[in-house]
Amino acid sequence: MRGPLVAGISVPRIEGMAKIRGEERYASDITGPGILWAVARRAGTPSGILRSLGGEPASMDGVVAFCKADSIGGENLLGILEPDQPVLVPLGGRIRYCGDPVAVVVADTKERAEAAARALTVEIDPLPAVFDPLEALSPEAPVLYPGREGGNLLASGWVRRGDVKSVLEDCDLVEEDVFRFPMQEHAYLETESGVALYDGDNLEMEVSTQNPWRDRDELSRALGLPRDRIRVKAPCLGGGFGGKDGVVIQGLLGVAAMACSGRTVKMVFSREESFLCSPKRHSSVTEMTLGCSSDGTIRAIRCRFTLDSGAYASMSVPVLTNGLDHCCGGYRFEAVDLEGRAVYTNNPFGGAFRAFGAPQVMGALEQLVDRLAKRLEADPLEFRKKNGLVRGDMNGSGVVLTSTVGAVPCLDRALEQEIWRSREEWRNSAPEGKARSTGVALICHGQGFGPGIPDFANARIELTGEGRFRLYSGIPDMGQGNGSTYVHLAGESLCQERDRFDLVQPDTDRSLRSGPAAASRTTYIYGRALLSAVDELKRRMYVKAGMVLGAREDDLALLPGRVRCFSSGRELPLEVLAGFMEPPERCFVAGSLAPVSFPGPETDYGPKSSGFPHCIFSWAVHVARVEVDLLTGQVSVPRYLAVTEAGRVVNPQMYRQQIEGGVAQGLGYALFEDFSVKNGEVTSKDLSTYIVPTSMDLPEVECLAVELDEPSGPKGLKGLGELPLIGPLPAVANGLAHICGPLTVSPFTAERVFFSLSGGARDEDSV
Amino acid sequence: MRGPLVAGISVPRIEGMAKIRGEERYASDITGPGILWAVARRAGTPSGILRSLGGEPASMDGVVAFCKADSIGGENLLGILEPDQPVLVPLGGRIRYCGDPVAVVVADTKERAEAAARALTVEIDPLPAVFDPLEALSPEAPVLYPGREGGNLLASGWVRRGDVKSVLEDCDLVEEDVFRFPMQEHAYLETESGVALYDGDNLEMEVSTQNPWRDRDELSRALGLPRDRIRVKAPCLGGGFGGKDGVVIQGLLGVAAMACSGRTVKMVFSREESFLCSPKRHSSVTEMTLGCSSDGTIRAIRCRFTLDSGAYASMSVPVLTNGLDHCCGGYRFEAVDLEGRAVYTNNPFGGAFRAFGAPQVMGALEQLVDRLAKRLEADPLEFRKKNGLVRGDMNGSGVVLTSTVGAVPCLDRALEQEIWRSREEWRNSAPEGKARSTGVALICHGQGFGPGIPDFANARIELTGEGRFRLYSGIPDMGQGNGSTYVHLAGESLCQERDRFDLVQPDTDRSLRSGPAAASRTTYIYGRALLSAVDELKRRMYVKAGMVLGAREDDLALLPGRVRCFSSGRELPLEVLAGFMEPPERCFVAGSLAPVSFPGPETDYGPKSSGFPHCIFSWAVHVARVEVDLLTGQVSVPRYLAVTEAGRVVNPQMYRQQIEGGVAQGLGYALFEDFSVKNGEVTSKDLSTYIVPTSMDLPEVECLAVELDEPSGPKGLKGLGELPLIGPLPAVANGLAHICGPLTVSPFTAERVFFSLSGGARDEDSV
Repeated sequence: MRGPLVAGISVPRIEGMAKIRGEERYASDITGPGILWAVARRAGTPSGILRSLGGEPASMDGVVAFCKADSIGGENLLGILEPDQPVLVPLGGRIRYCGDPVAVVVADTKERAEAAARALTVEIDPLPAVFDPLEALSPEAPVLYPGREGGNLLASGWVRRGDVKSVLEDCDLVEEDVFRFPMQEHAYLETESGVALYDGDNLEMEVSTQNPWRDRDELSRALGLPRDRIRVKAPCLGGGFGGKDGVVIQGLLGVAAMACSGRTVKMVFSREESFLCSPKRHSSVTEMTLGCSSDGTIRAIRCRFTLDSGAYASMSVPVLTNGLDHCCGGYRFEAVDLEGRAVYTNNPFGGAFRAFGAPQVMGALEQLVDRLAKRLEADPLEFRKKNGLVRGDMNGSGVVLTSTVGAVPCLDRALEQEIWRSREEWRNSAPEGKARSTGVALICHGQGFGPGIPDFANARIELTGEGRFRLYSGIPDMGQGNGSTYVHLAGESLCQERDRFDLVQPDTDRSLRSGPAAASRTTYIYGRALLSAVDELKRRMYVKAGMVLGAREDDLALLPGRVRCFSSGRELPLEVLAGFMEPPERCFVAGSLAPVSFPGPETDYGPKSSGFPHCIFSWAVHVARVEVDLLTGQVSVPRYLAVTEAGRVVNPQMYRQQIEGGVAQGLGYALFEDFSVKNGEVTSKDLSTYIVPTSMDLPEVECLAVELDEPSGPKGLKGLGELPLIGPLPAVANGLAHICGPLTVSPFTAERVFFSLSGGARDEDSV
Repeated sequence: MRGPLVAGISVPRIEGMAKIRGEERYASDITGPGILWAVARRAGTPSGILRSLGGEPASMDGVVAFCKADSIGGENLLGILEPDQPVLVPLGGRIRYCGDPVAVVVADTKERAEAAARALTVEIDPLPAVFDPLEALSPEAPVLYPGREGGNLLASGWVRRGDVKSVLEDCDLVEEDVFRFPMQEHAYLETESGVALYDGDNLEMEVSTQNPWRDRDELSRALGLPRDRIRVKAPCLGGGFGGKDGVVIQGLLGVAAMACSGRTVKMVFSREESFLCSPKRHSSVTEMTLGCSSDGTIRAIRCRFTLDSGAYASMSVPVLTNGLDHCCGGYRFEAVDLEGRAVYTNNPFGGAFRAFGAPQVMGALEQLVDRLAKRLEADPLEFRKKNGLVRGDMNGSGVVLTSTVGAVPCLDRALEQEIWRSREEWRNSAPEGKARSTGVALICHGQGFGPGIPDFANARIELTGEGRFRLYSGIPDMGQGNGSTYVHLAGESLCQERDRFDLVQPDTDRSLRSGPAAASRTTYIYGRALLSAVDELKRRMYVKAGMVLGAREDDLALLPGRVRCFSSGRELPLEVLAGFMEPPERCFVAGSLAPVSFPGPETDYGPKSSGFPHCIFSWAVHVARVEVDLLTGQVSVPRYLAVTEAGRVVNPQMYRQQIEGGVAQGLGYALFEDFSVKNGEVTSKDLSTYIVPTSMDLPEVECLAVELDEPSGPKGLKGLGELPLIGPLPAVANGLAHICGPLTVSPFTAERVFFSLSGGARDEDSV
């Protein structure tokens, strides 16, 4: 396509053709002659003391190394906020879940490494275990970290404003319920994988990761290697969704490489290992009470939710605080009383997962909101609009919103749409044996980290000697297309065509630290930094071009492949301009720090937790048409609308893809995905029993953008990565509620819906 | 509606309810006890010398004043660029068209004034007249301005680049034709009207005008009153479209008021008088040749067009140059040879009309483009896309486009639409006796004045003592809603709700000179100035609020009705803040000057003409479904799509209204409106014979916005006022061409289409 890149016009992904052709090299694709394979041995039991490791794998055919904890030179602990997870459990050390790694074997083929790991004999003295987070809080429960202050209560937080008790008593209508949502598995196409080479001094790793810089920090601490002797590169990821936001495979891979100095070691988790060992979306129990007056004004909320953190802290604390921050959704409240808890158990550990605690609370909130609307006989969108936040309002966390707020505009847009206007026709058109309904949800999601965790990025852009632009991405691309969007943003600003850009994927040696691909921050924060760096580069280019063309700088314009002087019409090709510039004046870096909230004195946050509360949110209204087979309880969602406000749209195609992907993952969470753990053992071992929806199971998602211009965002955009996942569960639940009554336990499988249709047990343990 | 104004979200017009309730006071609504009425007497003959005026109207019942040219103290000449038009023709002076005014009578009622004007005896010695602009150029033709250099050739201009002759000879395909388009009448709801009061020193006028400041200049010169003793106010207009961009009624009204010192005089043109005396869209003859290569690359254009200026220059010169600037539409050319001429005749005069010469050339160009595509058997949108301009290309006028260029994005969007994809089905679905087809056009229109005419605006905004905002508009609102958009822009920037604003309509004593409501500049240029003034005011408000709250200025945010300190949560209501500010620190003004093009050396512009060429354009692709009754030739347009790129959309509702209005006026131009003048006499005297389409004659217009972000525009917007009018004629013509062959004379009435269907005469004088 001719012409410079322009925000608002779709551009194919810069790596799109390479991916289609199978040429894009993911971490799991890296291979070469003499490459070694590493395989971990796991505990296989949820609680105990590692007594012995035997079996002499080093003597087996092709085995090159056998690594135990005692070969690790550093602290042997992983964990960003709470370093509680050993890379390898040492002899005499505690086993806290089935997936704890006890050894790594390296061999010349994958099969030999697997055989050797299998052949290991592992002796574990069992200890009592606890699998239910509420039980884990009882004084009698076995404690995972003896001597730890707080016992199994990993963290808790609260938000209080006003007198919820008396306001609720004063409310004309009150709805309350307890909601149970299960663990969710990321189920990325590419399991955890990477290669590493240790040359005796330096460790170099290329790994499927959402944050190579933090990996480097963690590896340095855990393995005892100085940070400047570690290099981590992040190629394109085959999916991440939070599951690669933290060290899962990297520590094992580092241990293996350091045991095989001079040789490249590769490691790829099997699907089973990935299911067992990667962090999960926390299973949750959410108790919520919501009250409103008879005129339809929502007044008070009480919420207590408990997250099952499993064996390790991982990202549980920020997931908890983000959950707190989203309990009140898009509404104004007179009084709030929110409490969240994260609890250690002997289950697989919970961690980062797209939307970070928001689905667990908003899935409850949006169902109660709908119940209030129904009791008031109000249009559920109009009811939400009456209570919807606008800029200048205080949200549930006590933050007065000063950035763009799309709640009401999204509701207005949804109200106009055919899918909503025709909901009666849809309901009445159900054939014999089916029932039809339409459900809605108003959702929002915070942007970036919030106060306490510096949310910054550092961009680097270079005009090459050949007059091309090289863009050093600081944040991995897990498939969401942020690399392409960086090129898009720079291309518009520099008025260049896409083909003039080369994109360097994140690499701790070449690009600059910019934090994780997470928290809906990726495009926002790196984009801000990048546009600053681009501005610096442009200024320098104009200075130099002005010297060459004998023109004032404000008489110059960048055009595709050249700089033009307006008044003389003379032009300077970029390759010629670059020839007049020395390397240091062709490369610019710039940083950006995200704005954070400064909440006023109206709210009591309890123990301060980092990353809380947010000041910038993206917004959406989701509308789902549902159909239920009254004989079987089978649910289908034949049509789905997502009206989204996430600032300006830079690349409509990728904007739509983010929404489609989020809705797909959210519909999986709502309808299909039931990550099953029994007594600490994962019983959904792979994709044959853990059902992720395919394109055939999903409707076409209609995407409408409400484009408010977020002044703090690059080209006015806000983050969109997590938001769309939140909507499907409550939208579908609200649709189903018209047919089979409230559904408080997900996923909404045919069995659950069938029992609910037959007025069946609300005690969900029976299904 | 709650919440601050936000760009991108529709907001009802600020004056909307007042208009719906009939409370909005237009100039023609102003009345009061003792008000006098003025009526002009017109020549009634197209060419001659005014010999005498008799009949003693002063003695008639109720007559207060009888004004002739000799009562005028100034130069008695109107005309912005070429002052050639007398306010009143003096005795012995030349009559150049039927509408020339010779006297004004003022009486205590309208009826008495009319009767007295009618009773006047006017003697005119006839002179030879000329009504055809091509004949007017012959040496034998009567000359309207004897002794004038150039004779009847009012102005001409050309653009040349490359060797058109040899490139055309080298082209594989060449299309050429001659196109004749008639005059068009603005036909605003509110005819020219106003009131004026002269107190012996000062003249105050409230008049339906597009430019009160230029009116003041013209009145000062023509009537001999110093500028600072004239005040002109512009209330909401009941339509303008260019017809009120210049003095038409103001001079007569001023003469009348100055003859009746101390009393308010009112004047309202009848529809007949408005048809006779207001400027028209110039009738035109456009000869055009277009060549392309067999691979579909358009290479060269030759164009010569002639505009009938009628009796006076009015805006003919900028209309001519704007026509030149639009001859090449949205395409790249190797070689261009363009020439435009404006010629005096004894017809009613041509002047400003929405799109200023562009319809006369693009209506020809887009038909020839379609013919080339058809001969190549190419998709007409793909053919245009192949040749469409992108940023960095040089356009036909030799300007390298450095701002947003929506041509290709609009074509891409149109290609995706159902109306286009289903064109075969539409064609094949024609019932017996009908034929169906789909036509397209790619159009563009320049933004503002271009070099040579300073295009500036000056905005003024005030925080009142009550904590409200008063916005002093500098550019009249003729119904397009710019006043509301000014409030919208300021409201977003100040984060305030609509109801906190008061809008002062343009008034030479209160607001600041900002040029006409014309040239698609109104929102763009005043919006730029306004946002600068708002920034100044905000800065001052933060300084003061910081002093009061004891806070740093970057710790403050404007919120609806208040300023908030982030870190302390303290808030200051605007009325309290205003109390801390003295009047001079609550009112800010700022100016803005539009960017202009600096074309390179590749092009020869011939005699320099002002306002040419443009550097910023808005773009659109129009798609029209047409249906022809094969028995009668009757054309209908049942469906119409306008894909428009005019930068960012601030108020979607008004954006759509501008497009709907422009398409309606353009369909009138294409199909209905045939302003008929025979020997200088207007024979379409009113709306009974001059057929303006009603809503029943028009399709619903589908409006799609392609929102590129124009960096020079306020909130990224560009002008949109004129663009949509250009598309309907060529889009409909291209649709009809598939059915009845080329149509080169408009409007495409049933008769013309019928004759064309029957292979009839191309000589259009016969129909």
